[in-house]
Amino acid sequence: MVITVPATSANLGPGFDTLGLALNLRNEIEIIPSEKQEIEIYGENADFLKKLPRNYFVEIFTEHYKYLTDKEPKFKFKFNNKIPLSRGLGSSSAVIIAAITAAYEAAQVPYKKDKIINLALNYEPHPDNITPATLGGFCVAKLRKNRVYFLKKFIPTYLRAVIVIPNRPISTQRSREALKKTYPLKDVVANISSSSMITAAFFSEKFDILKYIVEDKIHQENRMKLVPDLFKVREIALREGALMSTLSGSGSTFFNLAYKDDAYSIYAALKDNFKDFNVKILNFDNLGVKVYN
Amino acid sequence: MVITVPATSANLGPGFDTLGLALNLRNEIEIIPSEKQEIEIYGENADFLKKLPRNYFVEIFTEHYKYLTDKEPKFKFKFNNKIPLSRGLGSSSAVIIAAITAAYEAAQVPYKKDKIINLALNYEPHPDNITPATLGGFCVAKLRKNRVYFLKKFIPTYLRAVIVIPNRPISTQRSREALKKTYPLKDVVANISSSSMITAAFFSEKFDILKYIVEDKIHQENRMKLVPDLFKVREIALREGALMSTLSGSGSTFFNLAYKDDAYSIYAALKDNFKDFNVKILNFDNLGVKVYN
Repeated sequence: MVITVPATSANLGPGFDTLGLALNLRNEIEIIPSEKQEIEIYGENADFLKKLPRNYFVEIFTEHYKYLTDKEPKFKFKFNNKIPLSRGLGSSSAVIIAAITAAYEAAQVPYKKDKIINLALNYEPHPDNITPATLGGFCVAKLRKNRVYFLKKFIPTYLRAVIVIPNRPISTQRSREALKKTYPLKDVVANISSSSMITAAFFSEKFDILKYIVEDKIHQENRMKLVPDLFKVREIALREGALMSTLSGSGSTFFNLAYKDDAYSIYAALKDNFKDFNVKILNFDNLGVKVYN
Repeated sequence: MVITVPATSANLGPGFDTLGLALNLRNEIEIIPSEKQEIEIYGENADFLKKLPRNYFVEIFTEHYKYLTDKEPKFKFKFNNKIPLSRGLGSSSAVIIAAITAAYEAAQVPYKKDKIINLALNYEPHPDNITPATLGGFCVAKLRKNRVYFLKKFIPTYLRAVIVIPNRPISTQRSREALKKTYPLKDVVANISSSSMITAAFFSEKFDILKYIVEDKIHQENRMKLVPDLFKVREIALREGALMSTLSGSGSTFFNLAYKDDAYSIYAALKDNFKDFNVKILNFDNLGVKVYN
């Protein structure tokens, strides 16, 4: 059995804990019956992950597999990772969603994606990465009374993401410190209106309007100050035709949305200016977590 | 020439200064060439309006007509009003939008609805009533750098509004006092996510989800306390099958969204419990301001 799961960009600037979308950058996990549990790790951050005392995927998989079957799991796990860790691309949500899905598949217990998302809440209390990691596309999600509600829209194939992955993360602690305790009404209105307009733009496929209405007053500017190069990333991306240019999750990656025909010039200009950063043109993913048996 | 313009419900709870929709409850203004300016007023609040020293519509109309033609307006105005004043149904936005539109029509100067909305900003600095009054339908609007950006979605004909108009207004001053200076992050997130989900629900026509995701932490509860009957209005409407039940604008009217088949039982239960309030079942309006020459 092979599970693949996409990277995700959450928040999209103003849509704090609400908006997210899936990128065609996928971790792949092969799970093979085996008397002895084995773990092989390839790809992004493999050396670091090999040294960890526990494997997060195997831990979550085992918990669910045991619960569903009352048996010890006997598998070999082969990870081929593409999603970098701690860069705001949903690597942790990808692991959680893939592990729960894999457990249900291996246990041969039927499930709906809705269930996977709600089980994932036990590990990741915000819905904005886990929802698109599960469903793909552009997702709006809301947590209420311990349940995730969501709506999804396919992202058209004429769009691309140009992502800029800096050579360093933003530490979780400093990222949290960038949040204020309270916000004045005008900032709240800026985010309500901007997040709602982004939603309307994706659902009605009217992407041109994004150039004028994306602004965040909750977290983005303070977090960008922790990697000040990002201000120039945004400036260049918008100048080169990006429809929107926002922090991906809580960073440090920057997410730029563009029409297919504009993606290369954005990519080239960013590559040229940020030689140490990893710049990629990606398609969007509209499928979410996938299982091949 | 006859101008008709719809009532509007703005905010829709969480979508503060952002969301709004148009109701098929219309003011009608007939404008007839006349050597002597005359004003006739019929319908809602006619006695009150007749006593005012100035007519707001005629004032705005005159300002634009003079600017466009360099001539004094010579017209008789006949108002047939259906939108009650000061009840959160966009009566003031309706006047502004109709007056500007009428001036362009009377001056025979071509215009786009986009222009009407942005001119209206001079009189009404929030975009959430003026946008649906102009365009009809469900509208998401955002004010940025002194310009209104908006997207509109048609509202399906299988939906109805059940509106409850209390027998008293909420004073503007007390309504403003109900707003706090600052809001904690969790309340901000509640509104961002709820407003974005409402947007997604209308744009994807998935209305069932509204039952679970509408919550406001910015203004609604404090304003409802000024007319405490409204808590019972909401309770009854939701119990009888309303998809959502929110303050219309800053009140005092309550707006309930329902499927056509559920509208009557909501209406009947509300009518039964609030004999002094005006309860109406309305269709939605998808046209906005209209001119008949």
